Amino acid sequence: MTPDDLDDDIFKGGMSVFLKDAKTADGRSGILIDEDGIIAAIGFKSDRKPENEADIVVEASDMIAVPGFVNTHTHAAMSLLRGYADDMHLQEWLSEKIWPLEAHLVADDVYWGTKLACMEMIRSGTVAFNDMYFFMESAAKAVDETGMKAVLSHGFIDFGDAEKREKEIRATESLVSHIKSLNNPRIKAAVGPHAPYTVSKDALKWCAGFAEEEEILLHIHLSETEQEVKDCIEANKMRPSKLLDECGCLSERTVAAHCCWLNGEECELLGKRGVSVSHNPASNMKLAVNRAMPYKELRNSGANVTLGTDGCSSNNNLDILEEVKFAALLQKFYWNSDTILPAGEALEMITSSGAKALGFGSGKIEEGQYADIVLLDRKTPCMTPLYNPVSNIIYSAGANAVNTVICNGRILMADGYIPGEEETLRKASEIAGNLVSRSEK
Amino acid sequence: MTPDDLDDDIFKGGMSVFLKDAKTADGRSGILIDEDGIIAAIGFKSDRKPENEADIVVEASDMIAVPGFVNTHTHAAMSLLRGYADDMHLQEWLSEKIWPLEAHLVADDVYWGTKLACMEMIRSGTVAFNDMYFFMESAAKAVDETGMKAVLSHGFIDFGDAEKREKEIRATESLVSHIKSLNNPRIKAAVGPHAPYTVSKDALKWCAGFAEEEEILLHIHLSETEQEVKDCIEANKMRPSKLLDECGCLSERTVAAHCCWLNGEECELLGKRGVSVSHNPASNMKLAVNRAMPYKELRNSGANVTLGTDGCSSNNNLDILEEVKFAALLQKFYWNSDTILPAGEALEMITSSGAKALGFGSGKIEEGQYADIVLLDRKTPCMTPLYNPVSNIIYSAGANAVNTVICNGRILMADGYIPGEEETLRKASEIAGNLVSRSEK
Repeated sequence: MTPDDLDDDIFKGGMSVFLKDAKTADGRSGILIDEDGIIAAIGFKSDRKPENEADIVVEASDMIAVPGFVNTHTHAAMSLLRGYADDMHLQEWLSEKIWPLEAHLVADDVYWGTKLACMEMIRSGTVAFNDMYFFMESAAKAVDETGMKAVLSHGFIDFGDAEKREKEIRATESLVSHIKSLNNPRIKAAVGPHAPYTVSKDALKWCAGFAEEEEILLHIHLSETEQEVKDCIEANKMRPSKLLDECGCLSERTVAAHCCWLNGEECELLGKRGVSVSHNPASNMKLAVNRAMPYKELRNSGANVTLGTDGCSSNNNLDILEEVKFAALLQKFYWNSDTILPAGEALEMITSSGAKALGFGSGKIEEGQYADIVLLDRKTPCMTPLYNPVSNIIYSAGANAVNTVICNGRILMADGYIPGEEETLRKASEIAGNLVSRSEK
Repeated sequence: MTPDDLDDDIFKGGMSVFLKDAKTADGRSGILIDEDGIIAAIGFKSDRKPENEADIVVEASDMIAVPGFVNTHTHAAMSLLRGYADDMHLQEWLSEKIWPLEAHLVADDVYWGTKLACMEMIRSGTVAFNDMYFFMESAAKAVDETGMKAVLSHGFIDFGDAEKREKEIRATESLVSHIKSLNNPRIKAAVGPHAPYTVSKDALKWCAGFAEEEEILLHIHLSETEQEVKDCIEANKMRPSKLLDECGCLSERTVAAHCCWLNGEECELLGKRGVSVSHNPASNMKLAVNRAMPYKELRNSGANVTLGTDGCSSNNNLDILEEVKFAALLQKFYWNSDTILPAGEALEMITSSGAKALGFGSGKIEEGQYADIVLLDRKTPCMTPLYNPVSNIIYSAGANAVNTVICNGRILMADGYIPGEEETLRKASEIAGNLVSRSEK
């Protein structure tokens, strides 16, 4: 049910939108979006009245317009596992709680779990995300319906088993072919080798080759824990980044998550290959990985440093505004520097750098670009006073300052309302309850 | 202006309130609050209809009722400095930005800054806070009007100067006498010696004696940075906690903020004296203090461990739900333990332990206690699914799940609406602008 003062039609897309009096960071006022979702013009003098030209006029005089945020590493449907098990030792948590539950997942669970995740991401201003999980055709359906953008990969794990490898190859090929057949510019496929310690060298090589052939992203976990680095050195006589490089997995189409335990040489290598790195500070802190991603070295090396929330079982939410504060503060704390990762760079991580990693435009509010825009309400305590909008966004704003979210010109949330959210919350609760019943039977 | 569906009268207090179908953590449904603000009954069978007895009925079937949160260390009016200067080296930041601005503060600034802070704290479910700043009579006025509870202290700094000391003693005495004259059970005075490195031994002794005489709290910063500990050892041949103890400053009426650089012996001492400790993780991370408060040692020693946001210039918000996640995650990360500070203990920090530190009741939802209650909306993505409400509150909920806030039985926020917020935001913006103009002239 749409609130009385909102017309359900505004969420359909395909209409021109005028964000009247919305202020951009560089001080321009008003943004016009055409019916193809492209930003047609920014900044209007008072004598021009584009509200007469647009299908939808959003009164936005109290709003700051910023680029839509990008979450470069998550497992969206794990929203169903939120709060199911916390405060346990990692191995016990995985083997006694998470894996047994995941073993009972079916496609419909992933559909509703991904929808729940989309609602949550939209609420914090996220327009695009990079997802790795199972039953990804169902995830694609959820993403399509909510209007977000996503890169979707099947989590490929073979543990060196040839039969398993063949199965995973077929699952990956099938997902990529399915997503290509959707022909939806908002949804892309990726190859998702889980990690150097769960995927054999043969499989890593296949993934690299297939990603290159299909010209799609490769999404992988890299050096999250110290133990996996030690194990890799023992087994392969080289560190994980080197191993990935030897298998052809490092390129400008690679998104490597976590990257906590990289050494200087690995940072150099990732930079040289033009890899995108996804920092996941909340997950790393909650799971006590004991080292923060070497932000400065990676940035200096030329790697594209971005931000991800990881999945809900290790975070436990998908709030990118919370995550970016964790990033800016963890870097300062861990690397003992009060000036590392300043607000402007942190905003880049969740806008232009994130968009670049996933290949979704410039991540900026620019004429000719798809309109991925978040309107932040400056009439909230956390945005008052407003000396420096960027500082407030990074260090102070919460999801309750996010008023309106627009993706490819389509309004996904208006004045805090997302169509379909109520049904999604109800269904996801049911689904989660059933999943636990099945797994604990 | 009150939204159409809310009656302005519900915010006046002095009326009985029935939270119909609100669920407590232990599964009871419905809470009745009498006109004196006391919880009269919890849990109602369907045959009893207290809605016929109460002046106000809040439909709360989608709500989880938790105790109001307590913020045990802040400088509320520093909300006016939010985002004024960030990402600078600490000394430069203080001497070039923060102190020059603070030098121009007047009483009216503190009044509006505190009001802004109260709005922000209410939005994240905070009902009580422990504040140290200047012009605290103005802070008291703001607290009185918003309906929150607070302990207010004048930040006492003498730097060993006898004349300054006399001035600070008079300021402290005057504040305490003023607050006592208000005779408002929601507002208490405290003595606020700033820190062992800014207050002389003579002054510390005076503060301890005066606090004891007046039976009020003593609020102090302790061992935030490594440097101040080194300096203390060099100047006094003892660590800061020992110095405070020698001056009589450690007792069950003491709230010590930060406490990052305590050693084991100091933790023991604080526990033995029954001190309340306020953990301030976001501030500590942002200012790169390089060590997390030794939570486990303090808790094991018997100290009362609580949580505070610190002021907005080093946080930059007052969101206690964000802060408690920072606490739970920073402890795990820094102390390399995935089980330290579990969700249940984290919730205690911001409820019962916080209330104990400030002397505001039990911090629990119990019959006979003042009704300090937060209603969290379970129909939000961050609260879905709801396997474990406590886990969701600590790890996943944001301020946008906070629907209604009640302090001493008076409704401060209903369905996200706080009376007077709009005016406060407007005035605080103006005041902040004027303050900067004056200081940069």
